[in-house]
Amino acid sequence: MQPPPRKRRISILTSTGSIGQSALAVVRHYPEWFEVVALGANTQWDVLAEQIREFKPKYAAVVDPYAAEKLAEENLGVEILKGDEGLNEAAKVPVDTVLCAVVGAAGLHPLLSAIGAGNRVAVANKEPFVMAGKLVMEEAAKHGVAVLPVDSEHNAIFQCLHGYEKSDVQCIHLTASGGPFYGKPRETLAAVTPEQAVRHPTWNMGEKISVDSATLMNKGLEIVEAMWLFGLPESQINVVIHPQSIVHSMVEYRDGNILAQMGVTDMRFPILFALTWPERVDTPMERLDLTRMNVLTFAEPDFAEFPCLALARRAAAEGGTATAILNAANETAVAAFRKHHIPFLSISDVVGATLDACRASQDYSLASVMDADARARETARGVIEQIGSLA
Amino acid sequence: MQPPPRKRRISILTSTGSIGQSALAVVRHYPEWFEVVALGANTQWDVLAEQIREFKPKYAAVVDPYAAEKLAEENLGVEILKGDEGLNEAAKVPVDTVLCAVVGAAGLHPLLSAIGAGNRVAVANKEPFVMAGKLVMEEAAKHGVAVLPVDSEHNAIFQCLHGYEKSDVQCIHLTASGGPFYGKPRETLAAVTPEQAVRHPTWNMGEKISVDSATLMNKGLEIVEAMWLFGLPESQINVVIHPQSIVHSMVEYRDGNILAQMGVTDMRFPILFALTWPERVDTPMERLDLTRMNVLTFAEPDFAEFPCLALARRAAAEGGTATAILNAANETAVAAFRKHHIPFLSISDVVGATLDACRASQDYSLASVMDADARARETARGVIEQIGSLA
Repeated sequence: MQPPPRKRRISILTSTGSIGQSALAVVRHYPEWFEVVALGANTQWDVLAEQIREFKPKYAAVVDPYAAEKLAEENLGVEILKGDEGLNEAAKVPVDTVLCAVVGAAGLHPLLSAIGAGNRVAVANKEPFVMAGKLVMEEAAKHGVAVLPVDSEHNAIFQCLHGYEKSDVQCIHLTASGGPFYGKPRETLAAVTPEQAVRHPTWNMGEKISVDSATLMNKGLEIVEAMWLFGLPESQINVVIHPQSIVHSMVEYRDGNILAQMGVTDMRFPILFALTWPERVDTPMERLDLTRMNVLTFAEPDFAEFPCLALARRAAAEGGTATAILNAANETAVAAFRKHHIPFLSISDVVGATLDACRASQDYSLASVMDADARARETARGVIEQIGSLA
Repeated sequence: MQPPPRKRRISILTSTGSIGQSALAVVRHYPEWFEVVALGANTQWDVLAEQIREFKPKYAAVVDPYAAEKLAEENLGVEILKGDEGLNEAAKVPVDTVLCAVVGAAGLHPLLSAIGAGNRVAVANKEPFVMAGKLVMEEAAKHGVAVLPVDSEHNAIFQCLHGYEKSDVQCIHLTASGGPFYGKPRETLAAVTPEQAVRHPTWNMGEKISVDSATLMNKGLEIVEAMWLFGLPESQINVVIHPQSIVHSMVEYRDGNILAQMGVTDMRFPILFALTWPERVDTPMERLDLTRMNVLTFAEPDFAEFPCLALARRAAAEGGTATAILNAANETAVAAFRKHHIPFLSISDVVGATLDACRASQDYSLASVMDADARARETARGVIEQIGSLA
């Protein structure tokens, strides 16, 4: 395994969350492979300062003004780019790959900035695809930029599709662990706390995505993400319950052959794949031991108790800005749940009521998406207040 | 799914065995895709006659002189090619693909004939690779001929490797059902009859390969086949017990990602794949239903009770004509077992004693291989006589 003739230049935006830290853990193993050009944070300037000391990037993007000031006081010899615009500027710095790991809708603009600058993107943030997947893929095509999925399911599908024709795909099977509450009766979920909801049974992830996993909205968002990433209609995207999370997803071809990607439940694997693609490097992580894993099971999903998946399919089938509305309502509801403003089971109520109230447009432009996003957040906040006043 | 602009011309040699009949069952579904040019049989002229009436090939190869005469009497308007040489002649007729499905060592010459004539080959017959894999692959390279594996394990690996670099392969995992006797104590196998040995738990196959599955020699032969097909050393070929036979085999890459091919246990799937490659067509067969299958399990193999696998690894590691000796001894021993001349457990004794007695050469030429094959058969027959006289 030879290092590349010149180091690959990468930016990780932002780098202080779960994915960002995992990515730097990977990069640490390959000093001859990667040069870190830009890192970033929303508020966690102290974590970012440590990362800057170790990886010596040229740029540090900091969204929060107070955090930017605190970082500046550290005198780390790094150029600090401030605010939302700073994050966009950092994404535009020419590199080999920008790892886009902002949480939520806030990731859309930095992703588009990276693509617009001609940077290849490794995307760990599914919300931009749910909001504006058509736009993202069109921009990527226009700028000749590869889009590499970091989500373990989509990374699996990418690997199973490589070298084959999309027109030969019968369907893709997204595997779903079911999250911490799958199979539990709905009435027992009424009292679920944010602390319980973020404890995922098989993956160690960020908090927002962990709540999405508990409601199964995450799988719904993944359906939309897969539609745009792989250019398939919602009807060709199947979900299968696989509690062990060893098979990360599958592609079924028209001739009945199924290709599956398997591995341990460790986000560093898809991150490593995306950062080194199209090359592969020896993993420093522990491999999957086929003979020491549990039995693998697959089951037809029963989502009656988890309405978020059906809501996501409804928005996906409607198209246009419906999925942007879905995403905005979900982000607003999850934030309210995490602040104990609404109970766990109300997350889907908020999303459903918002989808009912907001008319979707078939205009996929950024202005139209941002308008839908804003309207949906306002509507969702109204629904949340109502729920609060009834409690 | 458009039919091709012109029909694909295929020959199936021989066509009266398990693979040949499955292949014609596949071809029957695609009248617009395939034109059958040549079929063949050893002795089963009546089965062949039926096939000729249905598929109207131009040539029929018949190895057995009496069978050739009987077929000629049917006046089917087909050109009959007689004897071993007839089979070679049929393999040389220019077509898109020759499906090589002769049983045992007898398949080597027709395979080389097909390749030498520039015909792409789909190979269901592993013995030629075990005898002379180096020669087969060198001839294929020389004539620019693609070699498509039909064995379900190797077909799976072919699918999991496509589009990727061989140098990135950590290892391949051949899955093994274990056959009908895996896990049973050795002393209970002493009385196994040929009728019991040919009943495979998950696959419906020919008789010779079913006995090989029962002794686990089949997995040993597959290791050698994989070495040559994929250009990997024996040390990179792992065997894992997977009793359900749903995962047909896997490729593990250096970065820890594993790609697996899954499907039902039906040889028509790999046959269809090989005949239509690089295109894929809609399967007329029942697809794998992920949610209705058993749990999948994988276990470290315990081959203490099944010495054939260790004998195959020993021959594979020695290289040269050692695997030709292994194959000849095994064919001779299996034939003797099927005629009730030796007990089941003596198959491995015959192979082991023959490997001990016959010196292998590092000369991979056809003459050297055929010499090793002949010497090994003679030696094996001697061992079998000795066992018979002791019984």
